[in-house]
Amino acid sequence: MTSTLIATPQSMHFAQALPLQSGAVISDYTLVYETYGTLNADRSNAVLVCHALNASHHVAGVYADQPNNLGWWNNMVGPGKPLDTERFFVIGVNNLGSCFGSTGPMHINPATGVAYGASFPVVTVEDWVRSQARLADALGIQQFAAVMGGSLGGMQALSWSMMYPERLRHCVVIASTAKLSAQNIAFNDVARQAILTDPDYHGGDYYAHGVVPKRGLRVARMIGHITYLSDDDMAFKFGRKLRDVAHTGEYQFGFGVDFEIESYLRYQGDKFSEYFDANTYLLITKALDYFDPARQFGGDLTKALANTKAQFLLASFSTDWRFAPDRSHEIVQALVNNKRNVTYAEIDAPHGHDAFLLDDARYLNLVRTYYERVAI
Amino acid sequence: MTSTLIATPQSMHFAQALPLQSGAVISDYTLVYETYGTLNADRSNAVLVCHALNASHHVAGVYADQPNNLGWWNNMVGPGKPLDTERFFVIGVNNLGSCFGSTGPMHINPATGVAYGASFPVVTVEDWVRSQARLADALGIQQFAAVMGGSLGGMQALSWSMMYPERLRHCVVIASTAKLSAQNIAFNDVARQAILTDPDYHGGDYYAHGVVPKRGLRVARMIGHITYLSDDDMAFKFGRKLRDVAHTGEYQFGFGVDFEIESYLRYQGDKFSEYFDANTYLLITKALDYFDPARQFGGDLTKALANTKAQFLLASFSTDWRFAPDRSHEIVQALVNNKRNVTYAEIDAPHGHDAFLLDDARYLNLVRTYYERVAI
Repeated sequence: MTSTLIATPQSMHFAQALPLQSGAVISDYTLVYETYGTLNADRSNAVLVCHALNASHHVAGVYADQPNNLGWWNNMVGPGKPLDTERFFVIGVNNLGSCFGSTGPMHINPATGVAYGASFPVVTVEDWVRSQARLADALGIQQFAAVMGGSLGGMQALSWSMMYPERLRHCVVIASTAKLSAQNIAFNDVARQAILTDPDYHGGDYYAHGVVPKRGLRVARMIGHITYLSDDDMAFKFGRKLRDVAHTGEYQFGFGVDFEIESYLRYQGDKFSEYFDANTYLLITKALDYFDPARQFGGDLTKALANTKAQFLLASFSTDWRFAPDRSHEIVQALVNNKRNVTYAEIDAPHGHDAFLLDDARYLNLVRTYYERVAI
Repeated sequence: MTSTLIATPQSMHFAQALPLQSGAVISDYTLVYETYGTLNADRSNAVLVCHALNASHHVAGVYADQPNNLGWWNNMVGPGKPLDTERFFVIGVNNLGSCFGSTGPMHINPATGVAYGASFPVVTVEDWVRSQARLADALGIQQFAAVMGGSLGGMQALSWSMMYPERLRHCVVIASTAKLSAQNIAFNDVARQAILTDPDYHGGDYYAHGVVPKRGLRVARMIGHITYLSDDDMAFKFGRKLRDVAHTGEYQFGFGVDFEIESYLRYQGDKFSEYFDANTYLLITKALDYFDPARQFGGDLTKALANTKAQFLLASFSTDWRFAPDRSHEIVQALVNNKRNVTYAEIDAPHGHDAFLLDDARYLNLVRTYYERVAI
């Protein structure tokens, strides 16, 4: 029997300045997080779940006053779920720079007394991991049973294994990559350009102008969304189906909505531009672009992963063209070169990159089985 | 020996109204075109070359006063070239709705005395073919030796074979498709949304406001450009190379240019937004989306192609993910089902969709060999 968790966001303030990879420093900051399950007496059953682009600390369950606000990985994390909160103490943490509670561009810069806006420093995956390590310290967790994430979250898990090799026994990296390709960067940059050139962006200080660069954010999200879905899945779900509100079966011969896929994408863009912060979007796409742990080893990922100690689970999805299975293969190969213990599964799933968030019995069973053998 | 043609654009006015697929009518219109080579006495050596998204009637050669303004298919068409203008009389025609001379949104609507702008009717591939047939009539060409095009130009060639089966002996369709996929439409719609939501678009009547929706057009072009290149080719040409103007080898930690691919794409977007018309971009993407000749046959492409009489050459490129080889296979299969004479080649080329415009010896030799057997 599974039951739905009631989650309670908490926050922790860190008064010590955090030096960032860029050379900048955040003088002090707050991280918002949620926990599910109970930390055992040995403090050995903690699992950190890292989030991807538009997600947050709200990984699982609902809020008491928002019974429909399900965590973004609620199918994965909870009582009786693959990452079973009856057994593990799971932490979801919102990243620095986000717009969901942790210190970000929308917050007041203590040095100036006004919102950071565009002056919020560019943060990297490694910066996030450093800030998360401080949260672990504060929670008294010396070593995680596992650090886990999908996509950008998987990059954070991978970074944990390199930056704090002693602090995790397992590293779970789903639908991720050790670096973005030129095409990935290209899509991110077009999205950024849509935001940066929106007249309502005002150099990032749109809060002061009482506007939001919704047009740019909407286009950015539409572009991103195309890359999350597979060509096949889009063909299956939408194909060339007409929206056809007038039931004529005819084209509209205008620039309104003709096809279902247009209606769907515009809706996704509209919705996203209502709740997401444009400065956060810029920051997160940059963190994606910059991630490249092999860079300081002359591009040699095997060397980058040489000091890891964790055991690894990697999974990819056959139709994911954003971070295709080949990207996971590179990581698996580099780990094997280092004689690490690696489990890898390539799931034959039609849903593209988004598959890592969806219900797929083989995928969920894979993760469940893996966690069953994680000693606590 | 090959020599460079000197091309001279010509224009022809059509006073007779053209009924469009949408039900709208263009009361009168002008088509701009160029011709290369000499029409033979039998008028049997004419080849019509149809253009794709951002091209024009300027297919080959240069202009006397613009010695560097090479036609977009100059490697394919000219004296001694695969489509040899020593043997064939080649016509390049600018499509209705374009911004390169033929009647389009920038021109005065005779009914109102002001520029068409957004009121220019949505035109389809079939409308273009009908307007091209009138040009052929006026030039005294009853039957083309071939009609040829790549991408959107290939759709026009294919339409010719269905709409005017007696008027062409050969149909050459390169890197094309019988219909756009949901993903193709999705990319087109994001591009359109970028333009339509640019405040400088002014509902399409930006000419009257003395502005151009450059921001939207720039983003639209950047999106499009990503889909023209292959992932592999982008990786090879750009990879994660830094632009690094300061020679620090470091990330910029800002939203300027970090990677070469960003610089390249932004440049492409800037350049395009300087010369291309936004209303034309909207129109052409709609013509792409609407093309689906099998639609009136319940989706049966074999039936759609049943009345064709031409012989066909189709070619696709292995790394083209915009109109992948599978899309050509569908057309080839439908033609084979109709027992048509079809030559098909899948070229193993790294350059994605753009390959149809590039120098590739196997590709150019294929077309050359094909035309050598075209009787005139």
